[in-house]
Amino acid sequence: MQATVLYGPRDIRFEERPEPAILEPTDAIISLPVTCICGSDLWPYRGADKVDEPTPMGHEYVGVVEQVGNAVQTIEPGQFVVGSFFASDNTCEICRAGYQTHCVQRQPGAATGGQSQLVRIPLADGTLVATPEPPPADLLPSLLAASDVLGTGWFAAVAAAVGPGKTVAVVGDGAVGLLGVLAARQLGANRVIAMSRHEPRQRLAREFGATDIVTERGDDGVARIKELTNGLGAHSVIEAVGTQESMMQAIRATRAGGHVGYVGVAHDVQLPGEELFFSGVHLHGGPAPVRQYLPQLIDLIWRRQIDPGKVFDLTLPLDQAAEGYKAMDERRAIKVLLRP
Amino acid sequence: MQATVLYGPRDIRFEERPEPAILEPTDAIISLPVTCICGSDLWPYRGADKVDEPTPMGHEYVGVVEQVGNAVQTIEPGQFVVGSFFASDNTCEICRAGYQTHCVQRQPGAATGGQSQLVRIPLADGTLVATPEPPPADLLPSLLAASDVLGTGWFAAVAAAVGPGKTVAVVGDGAVGLLGVLAARQLGANRVIAMSRHEPRQRLAREFGATDIVTERGDDGVARIKELTNGLGAHSVIEAVGTQESMMQAIRATRAGGHVGYVGVAHDVQLPGEELFFSGVHLHGGPAPVRQYLPQLIDLIWRRQIDPGKVFDLTLPLDQAAEGYKAMDERRAIKVLLRP
Repeated sequence: MQATVLYGPRDIRFEERPEPAILEPTDAIISLPVTCICGSDLWPYRGADKVDEPTPMGHEYVGVVEQVGNAVQTIEPGQFVVGSFFASDNTCEICRAGYQTHCVQRQPGAATGGQSQLVRIPLADGTLVATPEPPPADLLPSLLAASDVLGTGWFAAVAAAVGPGKTVAVVGDGAVGLLGVLAARQLGANRVIAMSRHEPRQRLAREFGATDIVTERGDDGVARIKELTNGLGAHSVIEAVGTQESMMQAIRATRAGGHVGYVGVAHDVQLPGEELFFSGVHLHGGPAPVRQYLPQLIDLIWRRQIDPGKVFDLTLPLDQAAEGYKAMDERRAIKVLLRP
Repeated sequence: MQATVLYGPRDIRFEERPEPAILEPTDAIISLPVTCICGSDLWPYRGADKVDEPTPMGHEYVGVVEQVGNAVQTIEPGQFVVGSFFASDNTCEICRAGYQTHCVQRQPGAATGGQSQLVRIPLADGTLVATPEPPPADLLPSLLAASDVLGTGWFAAVAAAVGPGKTVAVVGDGAVGLLGVLAARQLGANRVIAMSRHEPRQRLAREFGATDIVTERGDDGVARIKELTNGLGAHSVIEAVGTQESMMQAIRATRAGGHVGYVGVAHDVQLPGEELFFSGVHLHGGPAPVRQYLPQLIDLIWRRQIDPGKVFDLTLPLDQAAEGYKAMDERRAIKVLLRP
């Protein structure tokens, strides 16, 4: 089988790898009709996360169950399934509280790398959610988006306590931020302010329901959000970048008593305790428990209520994954779909 | 009139000051039958907060209304009132959302210093809550506790999402931490773990409803909380100290998806973004909107359902305030009541 492997900064190779096999009786093997590149893949691609050895890439996946271990009870060969980036048993106390990404048994979901033709998924019963039937081809991008970026944007909106009557600001115009806009509208927000200076992303933000666009960043961006909210700040702010600047922008754009939902994987962030204390905001986030939302998100996609697959603005054959990384790194593409 | 003034580190003087007068038509003047020293007064006392000029001390207060400005409508001379450390209009959007400490008009509540015989309170209608009638003398300590330490412990418990079925840990055995224990039990927590190594404070924690005492601190304290919670951590952790160690202890003692309610005024705290991200906890706190809880807390005290006044374990005449600071600084007293 062929798969995408990162050897070091900006060194992506598409090469022969052993086919994944069942290792644990709770495993499943799925074949991947489509796959994709995540904004968070750019951290190791850019060298911001260290890569010690050649690393198979890809953690977003949907596909057809090819094989299951003999302890798998609910997932069956032939089903079309959606999973997420952490495998979870979905039965422990933490899972039952809705935090499957912190499952006591958690481990990488796409254990052998999802930018490939086949992948091994641990804890198949807890991790995978089957669609009602094999999906029509045009729903594949949206179902794939549910696997990570939609689920993450959704969690960010929930963590930011989005709801009817709320004004929401979104820091970050990558796929997760844009789907945070979509989630905020689905969750009933009256007003959704997307912070973006890139015209194609602004356009998609509007398609997903943004009511306002703010092009300023940092302190100027905060000042603009305050102007738009009677000087108070937004009720809910979604942070989908993970830098010091974006976190402070999110915290400062939130009113006292408001909520920051942060899902950008934090890199070199130090939050000043005193400022946070006197801000009076709620802070919640981390790796999104996408599993919690999958049944609901699959249902919304199945009924064509939402079309999160629009975040894919470039499609390439899987063997051109390296070009896909380059396009996302250079912000020529929001998100790249790969077809094996 | 005589009042308590801080001149510099460990330099508390009791001296003649001008009597407070109505400055704004929304002000009230109240006379103070009892007053007290707050754990947070120790920060400037110890030199951790800079004092640029002689500063009248004291921000917790209950008392009898002596005089009101001509725009005051609901508060009347003769009433017995309880207020809190920030004055608030209680009508702005932030107040209505329950965050009166961030009121758009907020200002110090005990404007002229509460460790004195008389104090000026701004925004009297929004800030002060009258008791049903003048209270019996034995309720004064508890009503005074409501003004800050009880209200702050209560907010910490609410911020930590305490409720039935929850296991709560409390970091900090000062008056606020101890009243966090009381609040946690009142809010229905099944199990409340007080972290304390001081026998008299442990005893009071148990009186307030603590079910377990943990004497270890830092990483050992975290390990002990995990042992007591199936390795997962507490659902809710109250942080009532404000140091780097106490904040990290609180965050690490909380399970993924759990809640940290922090009310210790942060001093030199930097929260590591990556650890916070992967912890998956909720973080909320800051200066407690005591005003929100005053009607409920006064009612509980009035009906003698709670006795938060027990945190006062030393009573001194007001003119011996300096000795009271010394006793709290040396941890000889949990909290000092002063009688003018």
